[in-house]
Amino acid sequence: MNAESIRKLFDLVRKGRLSPDEAVERLRHLPFEDLGFAKVDHHRALRVGMPEVVFGPGKTPAQMAQIFSRLAKQGGNVLATRVSEQQFAAVQKRVAGAEYRGLARAIVFLGDKKKYGKGTIAVVSAGTSDIPVAEEAVVTAEVMGNDVTHLYDVGVAGIHRLLSNRETLMRARVVIVCAGMEGALPSVVGGLVGVPVIAVPTSVGYGAAFQGLAALLGMINSCASNVSVVNIDNGFGAGYVAALINRL
Amino acid sequence: MNAESIRKLFDLVRKGRLSPDEAVERLRHLPFEDLGFAKVDHHRALRVGMPEVVFGPGKTPAQMAQIFSRLAKQGGNVLATRVSEQQFAAVQKRVAGAEYRGLARAIVFLGDKKKYGKGTIAVVSAGTSDIPVAEEAVVTAEVMGNDVTHLYDVGVAGIHRLLSNRETLMRARVVIVCAGMEGALPSVVGGLVGVPVIAVPTSVGYGAAFQGLAALLGMINSCASNVSVVNIDNGFGAGYVAALINRL
Amino acid sequence: MNAESIRKLFDLVRKGRLSPDEAVERLRHLPFEDLGFAKVDHHRALRVGMPEVVFGPGKTPAQMAQIFSRLAKQGGNVLATRVSEQQFAAVQKRVAGAEYRGLARAIVFLGDKKKYGKGTIAVVSAGTSDIPVAEEAVVTAEVMGNDVTHLYDVGVAGIHRLLSNRETLMRARVVIVCAGMEGALPSVVGGLVGVPVIAVPTSVGYGAAFQGLAALLGMINSCASNVSVVNIDNGFGAGYVAALINRL
Amino acid sequence: MNAESIRKLFDLVRKGRLSPDEAVERLRHLPFEDLGFAKVDHHRALRVGMPEVVFGPGKTPAQMAQIFSRLAKQGGNVLATRVSEQQFAAVQKRVAGAEYRGLARAIVFLGDKKKYGKGTIAVVSAGTSDIPVAEEAVVTAEVMGNDVTHLYDVGVAGIHRLLSNRETLMRARVVIVCAGMEGALPSVVGGLVGVPVIAVPTSVGYGAAFQGLAALLGMINSCASNVSVVNIDNGFGAGYVAALINRL
Amino acid sequence: MNAESIRKLFDLVRKGRLSPDEAVERLRHLPFEDLGFAKVDHHRALRVGMPEVVFGPGKTPAQMAQIFSRLAKQGGNVLATRVSEQQFAAVQKRVAGAEYRGLARAIVFLGDKKKYGKGTIAVVSAGTSDIPVAEEAVVTAEVMGNDVTHLYDVGVAGIHRLLSNRETLMRARVVIVCAGMEGALPSVVGGLVGVPVIAVPTSVGYGAAFQGLAALLGMINSCASNVSVVNIDNGFGAGYVAALINRL
Amino acid sequence: MNAESIRKLFDLVRKGRLSPDEAVERLRHLPFEDLGFAKVDHHRALRVGMPEVVFGPGKTPAQMAQIFSRLAKQGGNVLATRVSEQQFAAVQKRVAGAEYRGLARAIVFLGDKKKYGKGTIAVVSAGTSDIPVAEEAVVTAEVMGNDVTHLYDVGVAGIHRLLSNRETLMRARVVIVCAGMEGALPSVVGGLVGVPVIAVPTSVGYGAAFQGLAALLGMINSCASNVSVVNIDNGFGAGYVAALINRL
Amino acid sequence: MNAESIRKLFDLVRKGRLSPDEAVERLRHLPFEDLGFAKVDHHRALRVGMPEVVFGPGKTPAQMAQIFSRLAKQGGNVLATRVSEQQFAAVQKRVAGAEYRGLARAIVFLGDKKKYGKGTIAVVSAGTSDIPVAEEAVVTAEVMGNDVTHLYDVGVAGIHRLLSNRETLMRARVVIVCAGMEGALPSVVGGLVGVPVIAVPTSVGYGAAFQGLAALLGMINSCASNVSVVNIDNGFGAGYVAALINRL
Amino acid sequence: MNAESIRKLFDLVRKGRLSPDEAVERLRHLPFEDLGFAKVDHHRALRVGMPEVVFGPGKTPAQMAQIFSRLAKQGGNVLATRVSEQQFAAVQKRVAGAEYRGLARAIVFLGDKKKYGKGTIAVVSAGTSDIPVAEEAVVTAEVMGNDVTHLYDVGVAGIHRLLSNRETLMRARVVIVCAGMEGALPSVVGGLVGVPVIAVPTSVGYGAAFQGLAALLGMINSCASNVSVVNIDNGFGAGYVAALINRL
Repeated sequence: MNAESIRKLFDLVRKGRLSPDEAVERLRHLPFEDLGFAKVDHHRALRVGMPEVVFGPGKTPAQMAQIFSRLAKQGGNVLATRVSEQQFAAVQKRVAGAEYRGLARAIVFLGDKKKYGKGTIAVVSAGTSDIPVAEEAVVTAEVMGNDVTHLYDVGVAGIHRLLSNRETLMRARVVIVCAGMEGALPSVVGGLVGVPVIAVPTSVGYGAAFQGLAALLGMINSCASNVSVVNIDNGFGAGYVAALINRL
Repeated sequence: MNAESIRKLFDLVRKGRLSPDEAVERLRHLPFEDLGFAKVDHHRALRVGMPEVVFGPGKTPAQMAQIFSRLAKQGGNVLATRVSEQQFAAVQKRVAGAEYRGLARAIVFLGDKKKYGKGTIAVVSAGTSDIPVAEEAVVTAEVMGNDVTHLYDVGVAGIHRLLSNRETLMRARVVIVCAGMEGALPSVVGGLVGVPVIAVPTSVGYGAAFQGLAALLGMINSCASNVSVVNIDNGFGAGYVAALINRL
Repeated sequence: MNAESIRKLFDLVRKGRLSPDEAVERLRHLPFEDLGFAKVDHHRALRVGMPEVVFGPGKTPAQMAQIFSRLAKQGGNVLATRVSEQQFAAVQKRVAGAEYRGLARAIVFLGDKKKYGKGTIAVVSAGTSDIPVAEEAVVTAEVMGNDVTHLYDVGVAGIHRLLSNRETLMRARVVIVCAGMEGALPSVVGGLVGVPVIAVPTSVGYGAAFQGLAALLGMINSCASNVSVVNIDNGFGAGYVAALINRL
Repeated sequence: MNAESIRKLFDLVRKGRLSPDEAVERLRHLPFEDLGFAKVDHHRALRVGMPEVVFGPGKTPAQMAQIFSRLAKQGGNVLATRVSEQQFAAVQKRVAGAEYRGLARAIVFLGDKKKYGKGTIAVVSAGTSDIPVAEEAVVTAEVMGNDVTHLYDVGVAGIHRLLSNRETLMRARVVIVCAGMEGALPSVVGGLVGVPVIAVPTSVGYGAAFQGLAALLGMINSCASNVSVVNIDNGFGAGYVAALINRL
Repeated sequence: MNAESIRKLFDLVRKGRLSPDEAVERLRHLPFEDLGFAKVDHHRALRVGMPEVVFGPGKTPAQMAQIFSRLAKQGGNVLATRVSEQQFAAVQKRVAGAEYRGLARAIVFLGDKKKYGKGTIAVVSAGTSDIPVAEEAVVTAEVMGNDVTHLYDVGVAGIHRLLSNRETLMRARVVIVCAGMEGALPSVVGGLVGVPVIAVPTSVGYGAAFQGLAALLGMINSCASNVSVVNIDNGFGAGYVAALINRL
Repeated sequence: MNAESIRKLFDLVRKGRLSPDEAVERLRHLPFEDLGFAKVDHHRALRVGMPEVVFGPGKTPAQMAQIFSRLAKQGGNVLATRVSEQQFAAVQKRVAGAEYRGLARAIVFLGDKKKYGKGTIAVVSAGTSDIPVAEEAVVTAEVMGNDVTHLYDVGVAGIHRLLSNRETLMRARVVIVCAGMEGALPSVVGGLVGVPVIAVPTSVGYGAAFQGLAALLGMINSCASNVSVVNIDNGFGAGYVAALINRL
Repeated sequence: MNAESIRKLFDLVRKGRLSPDEAVERLRHLPFEDLGFAKVDHHRALRVGMPEVVFGPGKTPAQMAQIFSRLAKQGGNVLATRVSEQQFAAVQKRVAGAEYRGLARAIVFLGDKKKYGKGTIAVVSAGTSDIPVAEEAVVTAEVMGNDVTHLYDVGVAGIHRLLSNRETLMRARVVIVCAGMEGALPSVVGGLVGVPVIAVPTSVGYGAAFQGLAALLGMINSCASNVSVVNIDNGFGAGYVAALINRL
Repeated sequence: MNAESIRKLFDLVRKGRLSPDEAVERLRHLPFEDLGFAKVDHHRALRVGMPEVVFGPGKTPAQMAQIFSRLAKQGGNVLATRVSEQQFAAVQKRVAGAEYRGLARAIVFLGDKKKYGKGTIAVVSAGTSDIPVAEEAVVTAEVMGNDVTHLYDVGVAGIHRLLSNRETLMRARVVIVCAGMEGALPSVVGGLVGVPVIAVPTSVGYGAAFQGLAALLGMINSCASNVSVVNIDNGFGAGYVAALINRL
């Protein structure tokens, strides 16, 4: 709905090819399709040039399959997150080429295999329990056309494990760091690299971890200035932001 | 302390120009200077290629001036944040060219005026009370060699004000959004642009705003996937992350 | 128990038709019926002219059916919220005309189909996951005699979807807005319309959404002045308040 | 920017009185004035038909006077809240007719004395310490053209004081209830009246009142279904919502 | 272990009937029995003259039966709270006279039926969902030898229901008030009576009730000075405190 | 407004000494006096047989003096809490016999020196910093006609200090325990005595004491069943409850 | 990777037995083994001289068995915490000598039965429900080569039970105290002994215990200066710290 | 009051040198001195063999001087923390040899200069703002007879600064780590050393640091098993615990 397309409308009106009433109607005609329970917004894909994303929880397998297949027909990539195996089974029946990434609990459809990212995104996680969140970030970045390397189980209490992999970090253009418990890893990684670090607090931990609140507070208070933070367990958001940065 | 420099050390030892003990000593000799009360780490500037930054609160004017002048002698840019006018007065006496940016409560020294950023960073704020935080982000990005545009007082309750400036947003390579109260602006801006959005909750608001906690929670839960968040009132951090992204 | 009815009591006493002791006794005789486990208060329906409402959780199907049928016999409307299908099954056996509204998890009995609302109530929701709460608001407003329109899946990250439906909003006399995550939608809607907005935080979201706390804080701190807030997931309360306003 | 005015634009273009480029430009030309530090939005007043409102804290007396006088020239009502006496002194010099309402800490300018409210708004407060918040609600409702009655110091621990004023409550079309400490009063008032109740938690109380958090939680959990809540100490918001309701 | 019994020990030593070592040993010999997994403290019953109490959760039916039967043999009253039907089944097999109070989820054994309370304890609850907590208070007070009356479903949003039972309240020597949601009832009851009120927040409510936190904060901030508070859902504690008061 | 006085009204009407309208009017005529800014409720004193109490903060010395002197004229006892020396100075000029209790920050007027309490109230405090709160409890209990003993600086980390004073505790009919920091003292005292314990969390402590929140949570979770809790620093409330209990 | 081993590397290079490239490579060659999903870090065991520890939750029985058996082959002790019986069953098949400690939910493998602790560690718990946490501490300390005594069910409300066991406490070199609810026991124990006390808040309690938060706050605010705190339910951490202290 | 001294009492009674009544009296006679406003407990010093400690805030200079001088006369060491210069001035007049440690805000009196600690205690702090807390730990450990080394400004975002001082850490017998903001440093230090680490969260930081809460949560959730935590800013507690450990 930018200035150019509006100017064309005015042009058509001036040339008499369109009545004012028709022009107003066209202005209103936005590219929505109404599925009854949710407005699928193809427009958004066009606008930001990014894959369509479906959030799994609370959708029946049938709803998931209906939304996913409609999106897949648009030709771009589709990603469904936090899906159950039941949801995947329903999607698989309707969408050839849909792939299940179990560790990340995600369904991927790659209609467009072009690389959009200019460099490598590194995904780092503190403990083995953080891997599902880290994998969601990996899948998201991959489905958005990026090369991704990962570095798992390199928590701060064994700092030499992280340091021995420092060169991998140094080669990345963006770094995603997933950590639960005290959420200290992004600060250390942030101090080692000179690129943006996206921190993902995870709900891993027990007792006073309060389902990721401690890690979130730790990361948002990071003393490393190159760290910004997304929601608890939000591997998708981290992958998405990193992919946007890597496209620049 | 990368592989290359270590290999050189080994080479010198092999060639007999350095004894093993001397080599071990050199490994230890990191570029610190000890001011007594704080280790000024020039190494960090070399490592990440970024200006030196001094956090003002809790430092006496004399301490501030001592640290600031020592850093300024390194030749790069220096930024002091959250400074008082007294601190600036002390700096001014020792550092020619130090400049006070009152709205942002910052001291800037530009030893290096090169542009490092490839595009423009847009800084958006919801209300007039958010301007000090927004200005801290502006100054930080500028001192790191970026072109910055700003868009103030465009909160979500008057959405047309934001929309009428949409083209400014669309031209930016990174967007910083500062907002207090419910912190809703980053979600709306995030939906309008296709680039990374750095959200800064501010402590602006009253009652249940709880000094920025409500805005922080709002932003960390943003439904826009391109939003990541820094600490409450942390304009510096937002400017820093945005500058890192804009250098890519 | 207003002045008029008391005056009549005094009158009867003055005329000797009632002894003072009988009068005191009558004052005490309020229209309660004692079901043993709960005092059903028909008086309340008379007093505020509103339907009777039963909260489902914690009641056995048998208790629900007993309370519901007793209320239905009063001739007005009855609404049961947060009911299970088991509770409805029990009610259905005792109350002809009781209807199940599955999406809203509600049982409705319409003894009185009169329209009490003067205009239309619009119910807006941010995402598809917010629909159960929104539907509870819709059902509540309808059972209280209102015309209701709804506008679902118009969250702030795709602001054009909301704006393209702005005329629907402009026609409403009261607007209810349901949103989870950051709870930003009421602020945007509040800025678009000139009528009261009832905001309902939902427990939709993950991570730091903290079961609706983030949305609640966001809404209570709304920068739009026409917004007031009800409890998390309290679609009923929002529908009730909106219906009261629409009767004025 | 409604359909009608756009249709006129198209009409002018069709008739050749306006070029397409000029038309696009006019679409962009929204009624803003730029004061340098804040965009004063006259448009908003037109849109919602309400007075202009200025929030006092953080503005210098000069800024306050500049904004207030510019708004006053528009001919409608102007309200400044949370103002200091210094701010009023500055306003008074530039705006004849500006009036200080000390108890409410507000400046009022009545350019338009028309009654917009159809009935009476009752403002109730629990204790004497809640009066400043209650008065802010009173002033807000009055400046928006309403008749307001108030009922102060009728807290729940002396329930007969409230009950002895029940008829005043019963005559109101909307009720605002301000209370600190446990915030119980709105529930009791809500049970007595059949109209909407706007609850305002106040930061009055000590110990575990936590600056109004206890009252906010109490009110948002009210068992009376006709209660909705605004921010802590937000007398203005309550008056604003009540006035909108009373206009219906 | 009071002065008198120690003096007797010294007397025995002086008279040569006990050696110093034996005396020291006797001082150590406190009336414990060691069940292996828990020290049953009969001494406590002697000391405070109160029934033995067992907390059910986390104990196997066998453990519960073992503890309960051992306590029952002491001759006093025994109360087990928060018990499952399985736990009761196990107790019933070993302890004749043990009685199950289903609504209160309690097992009662009355070895001592004496009345210790001087007056009546009134137990008031706001809604039907609060009844289990209220019943726990009732059972506790009864097993401690008190006459108890109860007044259920008299929440503050229908204040006339409470007021019409005011004489019941006025006759009580102590009042227990159980309420969830906003927890306002103790303040109103506290204002009506001149005796101590024990408030019990319940976890009844939804959304921002936060499992009783809102009610707890409401009650602890009560504006009625005769209110003190026990833990969320702690009907037992309330009954216990009330019984202690009623013995005075 | 009990049944008896209403019956008398009906009697008067029956005997023709009062018209129905006059009777209704008399029902309405409650013993209020209107001071303009606050309704002084003498009725409350009559109803609960307790002294009048004024809360100091937020009242000007003049307001305090006006309220205090009016209350003092009623003949009973008057207590003002949290008063400043300025407030006392103003009171002293108008009320002969008003006494300042500096440690407790209270003004006391004893119009009625009768003993209402049957036994002794013990006030225990953990540290010297808790003494102001403890003294407020002492003054409150004394002004309500009780004998009070106190036991200060007997915190749980030196448990023998408490135990060496155990007999003082054992003689009390009610015990008040004031403690900050972890708030553990009421549990220990509660285990030593067989009478009701009123726990007062104080805002004493630092770091994670969070102005008394830690102590409040500790006390409300006390494992001693005879403990109930009042608000943080609420020495007045504790003294009031204890006095009510001691009157029984 | 200490100075000595590096010096040896340089020596080898100087003597021509190693090329610089080989030397760099050796520096990199840290003693990791890569299991694919987790880097098992034998190095850590060497470094701190402590057993290997595996955290059970989230690991499949097969993963647990694979990790546990690989660690057991190193010859030292292995401890798995928070394990299920299924996990143990899988371990048992692969590791002869692995032992299940049911109360502590732990698997123990003792490859090294040497005593490392110089004195006795006392583990104290407040209630029977705290025993699983206490037992985890016991098992941890034992597997690290310590003599451990325990003292269970000695909560503060029956202080004489603790005092009658004071000599056991006095003999310990370190004391671990586990408590839920108000978490007061560490303060009392801390006051009785002159050695370090490690406090473990447990999630035992109900209502406002908030899953151990109340106990955590209580302990972190302890008025006893010899108390430090580990995470909620973190019996392992307490045992680990105590064992480290006891080795000194 | 141990078994031995009690046995002696019995012995004296047996030998007729003491009557039973005198013996009971002696049991009661504990070594307290009553200063009127606080019980000074010399007994505690004897019991744990540690210096006397006075907490400064809330004490007048005169009270501080009185307590301090009385303690100093006992011959051991005395430490006053959080003192003002005024308090020191008053102490200095009465106690020769009292020394002011400005950075730590402490007064020290060394009556006993013996070394009690067996090794060295290392005190590490993350930033220069943490130094006052770190210095309080240093002074405390020194006054308790320990050698202390410190390592300041070695935060995790510049991990090489910490690593280049690793040998200092490795030589310590106990390590104290003070950090604000995200509180990550103890985890990293804990991973580097094999001895107990006492973590002290500081209130340094801004925004969501919430006066040390973020650091506290970070530390209590530390993934390093040798970390235990004391209260926010509690340098004294950390020094005290470390000194106790170092005496073992």
